[in-house]
Amino acid sequence: MIPRYSRPEMTAIWSAENRYRIWWQIEVFAAEAMGKIGMIPAEDARTIRAAYDADALGEIDIDAIDAIEAVTKHDVIAFLTWAGEKLGPEKRWLHQGMTSSDVLDTTLAVQLKQAADLLIRELDVLLEVLKRRAEEHKLTPTIGRSHGIHAEPTTFGLKLAQAYAEFARNRTRLVAARDDVATCAISGAVGTFANVPPEVEVHVAAELGLAVEPVSTQVIPRDRHAMFFATLGVIASSIERLATEVRHLQRTEVLEAEEYFSPGQKGSSAMPHKRNPVLTENLTGLARMVRSYALPAMENVALWHERDISHSSVERYIGPDATITLDFALGRLTGVMDKLLVYPERMQKNLDRMGGLVHSQRVLLALTQAGLSREDSYSLVQRNAMKVWESDGQLSLLELLKGDDEVRARLSDSELAKLFDLDHHLKHVDTIFARVFAAQ
Amino acid sequence: MIPRYSRPEMTAIWSAENRYRIWWQIEVFAAEAMGKIGMIPAEDARTIRAAYDADALGEIDIDAIDAIEAVTKHDVIAFLTWAGEKLGPEKRWLHQGMTSSDVLDTTLAVQLKQAADLLIRELDVLLEVLKRRAEEHKLTPTIGRSHGIHAEPTTFGLKLAQAYAEFARNRTRLVAARDDVATCAISGAVGTFANVPPEVEVHVAAELGLAVEPVSTQVIPRDRHAMFFATLGVIASSIERLATEVRHLQRTEVLEAEEYFSPGQKGSSAMPHKRNPVLTENLTGLARMVRSYALPAMENVALWHERDISHSSVERYIGPDATITLDFALGRLTGVMDKLLVYPERMQKNLDRMGGLVHSQRVLLALTQAGLSREDSYSLVQRNAMKVWESDGQLSLLELLKGDDEVRARLSDSELAKLFDLDHHLKHVDTIFARVFAAQ
Amino acid sequence: MIPRYSRPEMTAIWSAENRYRIWWQIEVFAAEAMGKIGMIPAEDARTIRAAYDADALGEIDIDAIDAIEAVTKHDVIAFLTWAGEKLGPEKRWLHQGMTSSDVLDTTLAVQLKQAADLLIRELDVLLEVLKRRAEEHKLTPTIGRSHGIHAEPTTFGLKLAQAYAEFARNRTRLVAARDDVATCAISGAVGTFANVPPEVEVHVAAELGLAVEPVSTQVIPRDRHAMFFATLGVIASSIERLATEVRHLQRTEVLEAEEYFSPGQKGSSAMPHKRNPVLTENLTGLARMVRSYALPAMENVALWHERDISHSSVERYIGPDATITLDFALGRLTGVMDKLLVYPERMQKNLDRMGGLVHSQRVLLALTQAGLSREDSYSLVQRNAMKVWESDGQLSLLELLKGDDEVRARLSDSELAKLFDLDHHLKHVDTIFARVFAAQ
Amino acid sequence: MIPRYSRPEMTAIWSAENRYRIWWQIEVFAAEAMGKIGMIPAEDARTIRAAYDADALGEIDIDAIDAIEAVTKHDVIAFLTWAGEKLGPEKRWLHQGMTSSDVLDTTLAVQLKQAADLLIRELDVLLEVLKRRAEEHKLTPTIGRSHGIHAEPTTFGLKLAQAYAEFARNRTRLVAARDDVATCAISGAVGTFANVPPEVEVHVAAELGLAVEPVSTQVIPRDRHAMFFATLGVIASSIERLATEVRHLQRTEVLEAEEYFSPGQKGSSAMPHKRNPVLTENLTGLARMVRSYALPAMENVALWHERDISHSSVERYIGPDATITLDFALGRLTGVMDKLLVYPERMQKNLDRMGGLVHSQRVLLALTQAGLSREDSYSLVQRNAMKVWESDGQLSLLELLKGDDEVRARLSDSELAKLFDLDHHLKHVDTIFARVFAAQ
Repeated sequence: MIPRYSRPEMTAIWSAENRYRIWWQIEVFAAEAMGKIGMIPAEDARTIRAAYDADALGEIDIDAIDAIEAVTKHDVIAFLTWAGEKLGPEKRWLHQGMTSSDVLDTTLAVQLKQAADLLIRELDVLLEVLKRRAEEHKLTPTIGRSHGIHAEPTTFGLKLAQAYAEFARNRTRLVAARDDVATCAISGAVGTFANVPPEVEVHVAAELGLAVEPVSTQVIPRDRHAMFFATLGVIASSIERLATEVRHLQRTEVLEAEEYFSPGQKGSSAMPHKRNPVLTENLTGLARMVRSYALPAMENVALWHERDISHSSVERYIGPDATITLDFALGRLTGVMDKLLVYPERMQKNLDRMGGLVHSQRVLLALTQAGLSREDSYSLVQRNAMKVWESDGQLSLLELLKGDDEVRARLSDSELAKLFDLDHHLKHVDTIFARVFAAQ
Repeated sequence: MIPRYSRPEMTAIWSAENRYRIWWQIEVFAAEAMGKIGMIPAEDARTIRAAYDADALGEIDIDAIDAIEAVTKHDVIAFLTWAGEKLGPEKRWLHQGMTSSDVLDTTLAVQLKQAADLLIRELDVLLEVLKRRAEEHKLTPTIGRSHGIHAEPTTFGLKLAQAYAEFARNRTRLVAARDDVATCAISGAVGTFANVPPEVEVHVAAELGLAVEPVSTQVIPRDRHAMFFATLGVIASSIERLATEVRHLQRTEVLEAEEYFSPGQKGSSAMPHKRNPVLTENLTGLARMVRSYALPAMENVALWHERDISHSSVERYIGPDATITLDFALGRLTGVMDKLLVYPERMQKNLDRMGGLVHSQRVLLALTQAGLSREDSYSLVQRNAMKVWESDGQLSLLELLKGDDEVRARLSDSELAKLFDLDHHLKHVDTIFARVFAAQ
Repeated sequence: MIPRYSRPEMTAIWSAENRYRIWWQIEVFAAEAMGKIGMIPAEDARTIRAAYDADALGEIDIDAIDAIEAVTKHDVIAFLTWAGEKLGPEKRWLHQGMTSSDVLDTTLAVQLKQAADLLIRELDVLLEVLKRRAEEHKLTPTIGRSHGIHAEPTTFGLKLAQAYAEFARNRTRLVAARDDVATCAISGAVGTFANVPPEVEVHVAAELGLAVEPVSTQVIPRDRHAMFFATLGVIASSIERLATEVRHLQRTEVLEAEEYFSPGQKGSSAMPHKRNPVLTENLTGLARMVRSYALPAMENVALWHERDISHSSVERYIGPDATITLDFALGRLTGVMDKLLVYPERMQKNLDRMGGLVHSQRVLLALTQAGLSREDSYSLVQRNAMKVWESDGQLSLLELLKGDDEVRARLSDSELAKLFDLDHHLKHVDTIFARVFAAQ
Repeated sequence: MIPRYSRPEMTAIWSAENRYRIWWQIEVFAAEAMGKIGMIPAEDARTIRAAYDADALGEIDIDAIDAIEAVTKHDVIAFLTWAGEKLGPEKRWLHQGMTSSDVLDTTLAVQLKQAADLLIRELDVLLEVLKRRAEEHKLTPTIGRSHGIHAEPTTFGLKLAQAYAEFARNRTRLVAARDDVATCAISGAVGTFANVPPEVEVHVAAELGLAVEPVSTQVIPRDRHAMFFATLGVIASSIERLATEVRHLQRTEVLEAEEYFSPGQKGSSAMPHKRNPVLTENLTGLARMVRSYALPAMENVALWHERDISHSSVERYIGPDATITLDFALGRLTGVMDKLLVYPERMQKNLDRMGGLVHSQRVLLALTQAGLSREDSYSLVQRNAMKVWESDGQLSLLELLKGDDEVRARLSDSELAKLFDLDHHLKHVDTIFARVFAAQ
């Protein structure tokens, strides 16, 4: 966890305080269930639940718990000792027949669910921003580039609609990953419910908003977590894609968009061209990190027999790091896209800089449709296109074609001009926008 | 693609023949759609479709296509030249207004869908086998191990039920990943449908059983593929888990199960103990490979602007390698589990080898419930347990406890015996099985 | 950075305090060099150096620097402002003609060098321990296992000698990786030395014990760092190997060695068999993490043009995390191996448990050398071996062979007994030890 | 192995033919050594060696060996059966006391050494090309870019010198990795030399040009291979860096260099701007693949006990794939750099496009040195720089400064002009070149 790449709400999910509160809930809800099925006195169970409802625990005294743990060398026992002081003699029923993993693994599930909910909320904010900016630039023409080379016109709104659709998919994936990982297991030392019956698990799961883990083995199976972290890796990769787009657009020679730059931002104005896309470069690096966590998560799956504890250290890193970093990255990306400075004039200028060569494909097609062979059409376009190219875009392909007799024999000036019409490329933007945003 | 880790059906999906057939379908269906909307003569479109329905293409002559490509230096044009010969003059309408990527990306989607369908089928076979073996050993007692150390009894059927549940989850994930990646894009050079309207895409998608890609940019966005390969990586990790379980069970000192070994298998009987779990070791290695492909798939997401072609070489490797390897691995794992030699007597022997120490936890609980303090209960159990331990399991904890006056003061012989009853650990097996297999 | 997996000495390398001290050194040494070449007044340069030698900076007031940075929004300027207060007017010469990256990148090189030196020291301690334990168990017989199955006898010392040789190789690799990454760059905005001549770089490098970066581009090229972190990943993998060996040896059924367990360690003695190899399981997880950092480090190499800053966030994670985790893991592994409880009697017992089957290969060879065909030899051994196998090691292969007339016709009792002599397998241990430990 | 990304020389290293030839060498050299130490009859050993020297094996009949393997189910035995037919009765001494792994692992070492030698040769060719092109463009001015934004001038030769230095480092690393992996192990079932003494290993190693593996365990330890593949991953990352540079330079808006494009190359001239950097994009993808192989190679290290065979399937993939792909990629990169079209005029044009803003830093420094405070200097530069910026580079910073009275009060026209002199940035190019190329 790197403070500068952390936000308080997500960080709080991974705090000792939150962890202890979830432990407390699990123990209380378990006792409640045990009371109902007669495993412990019903009266005592109700007392425990009432204490919980009255927030008997109050502020969590982490130092006190740490002090106990220094003696007991056992984190769950230390917590229960401390928490027990808030109760009367009914405290003896806490954790009855349960194992530490029942508490720890279910707690991780709650934390990952909380983290996922937060990330989903952030995705929603990002989607909102992308939608707004996409609508804003729905018909802002810009050159589409394949291989970094000018291809055909598109609109800046379409770029953003693509990003919107991609993050909408990521939202769907994250919901699935959350539901996959949000299970409750209270099943004992090897998952047989030998000392605590399934009813307890069912009750705790319901109270926590988790699904019941159908079959556990002291631990919740780690394929669930692998899927969760792999999904975060995919989302991070999408962040990298959009960040890379911004970095490209901000290059000195392109300059079609810029990360927001407040007028007073220091160190810049003597070199006004030196506005560096540092936020999106930063996002590119953060994406590398989040992606890298998918691998150890997958290696965690093959635990030995009913469980070994090798997954635990991995999760101490990637549980907080992957979710905190992704949360920060989503927030940063949202900020970048929200305030992105967009320069339509420059987009148009870039679009025009090849002297109309980006329309050569349409001319080719038109000549063919006008009855010329593919080869002859090609040759006609080629001889004019090369002149434009050699002039570095100073000559205009349209004008040259108008002056080419063989071309003019097939296509009138107005037909030619129509081939250079940007609207041709924009005519299906509505359809695409309807596809992307309709379902939302 | 490693021949020894490949099976013909999956390999065929990645053959040149299959690829060309899909190209052909896309071109034909596109022409059909163009005919319907008047982009090309309706009559010609029908002729093309009729030729397709009559299988005019016949056997695909890959050498001929290669020969043409050697001249044209363009794979799609080469194929169309060859395929065009099977048609009359209507061949000129093929590929009208389309770009190569329209064909190539949609083809990859079809191949990945075919591959996913095959993998899903293999998962179903594996699930069937796991279910059968789980039922067979539903109540076969075996020691549950945490950290490789004996913990409490479980059943071999529960181990298999866990594997079943895990692969059932993987099936769900793979269905989602398949649907995520199975989209059709016929949208032109930068995805604006400038030269081919959306109706064509809609028709081709429907014919191929794909969803329409809502917004593409010459290419289908690679977050879809990243999710697909990440999902394969998770499935591979589950394979590693089950393979590792078998490897452990086959260790000389454990020997609770073995990969099937035909009586006549050479080289073994002079060293009859030397039956190596080579299939599951092999699966462990294959899992490492499939997992590793998730990373480059994620790096593929951040293509530059509307597309660059860096993803293509990656997919030439991981498209076939990930699916062929996983298909082979699923088949091999199914075979291993289907014929796994299971040794219940040895399981019982191992269960008993600690002289009943695995029941100490229950005795502890019973003493506490009988009114003794936690500390005193502990001390009583401990002094007897240590004797058993020092005897290396030659002494019996149950017998020692029966002979311990302080214990006997709290628990009768029959009460004690009941604490050592295996049935205690099996009483919820039905519940778990119902959870795991009911929904199926 | 996870506190529980961190040790103070390595953590200190990544502290703000250490970073600022290195910044200070770089600025001072640079000023000194500038004074020598007349870029700044020689007298002022000497004053700055004298202030450094007198430790004019004293304790570093991080809060004060942070407060300045909150205003300047620039970390290096904030530090220089604070540090400048410890100087007279000569402070104006600090950082003359330099860029922030000159300081930041060289600082990272110093930190990685410091970290590597610490890791090398830890490797040396580990090597010392492995050597001592290897000598101790040089001739302790134990069964060698391939595929987890008993193969032929070896010694526990040989296992440790293998680990020693592996970590000795890792030491060599780490020295190379350290030297690779320990370079100094003070070359300006794009590495041309436009505003600060190479002499300054040469001097600072010499003072810091770094090599000069032959050609930099504002930043030190990241292939150096990639190699560094990849090397840490390999070392982590070796840690996993040895940790896995211990985990296997501690399994209930094997129990040839155990992580040290202090007699009073709580929670264990009522279940004396339940001594879990939690340290080595933990190391397995830590290895996964360190290994995973190699990938983002490699992705960092392809910075855009003269530099982008995407590497920076990655390094904020993996710089501390990889080195701190590896340092902790090496320390933990050293502790485990230092105090590892080794059980030679159990090793012997396991060795014997197959009734001598592990010697069948030698008998086969001896029969062949006695003139029997390979097939006949095989058949003779086989019929006896199978009996032993079926008895689960209760029968003795040696005794059965002695009672087999056809065997006895070729091999006398004493010849047979010699084939079962463990010494045969130990006769080259000296040679191997000489190879492994001689050069050290 | 993807045919289109494979070259014959490297592919041949991984052919069955080459593998069998190395097996043959190992068996022959081992027999020779056994003859010398009296393990087998000296005369027979000499006969075997003589047969080898006379190339008695001749062409390798892979079908025949396959046919035998179909019966024996053992690859090494199948080969020995076939090879034995080329010998007389002395064939019975082949493979005496050896295990398959002795042959297989040593063979892999030879193949990796051969592959490394080939890669080193390819690196040398690349280095030669980079050096030539660097010298050619040693003083070709070009804008240096940080964050994709114009920073200060540099030369195109410096970019190439950087690449040269990077690949020279990679060469050093690869030599180390080769030497790390090139060891010979002939030590028997668990590495104790029980049935074949160390002298045999020493002899075979010497004949094959390998080092002796000091301590093996049936297998050569896999940390060696992990280091090897990790090193290939770093080299691949450097390829990605240079490929990315070319891709950037070829962007329509930048166009300072292009992959070679033969005048007659089809499909391009009607869209002469559409010259796509497909080779370097392809290299980017290939780099992702080679990099990804480092992870499974690291996971291979932790084999169980003396060996398991999980590494084998991994190596069947990554052995050929990593070396063949990297070989192809190096060859392709060499071709790209050899024939790279470089456009100095465009570089100059881009350099000038910001109206001299890239020199603002130097003006700032000069004003400070002329006695102005940092703040005042900044303000003077700023007010002129902003005008240039707003004119989109149409105004000249130099001219504006000349016309600014406050500036002129400190700096004469000629002093100002000198600050805009490109030579200032080129003055240390010689030094850098000397550093980079001198040692070669």
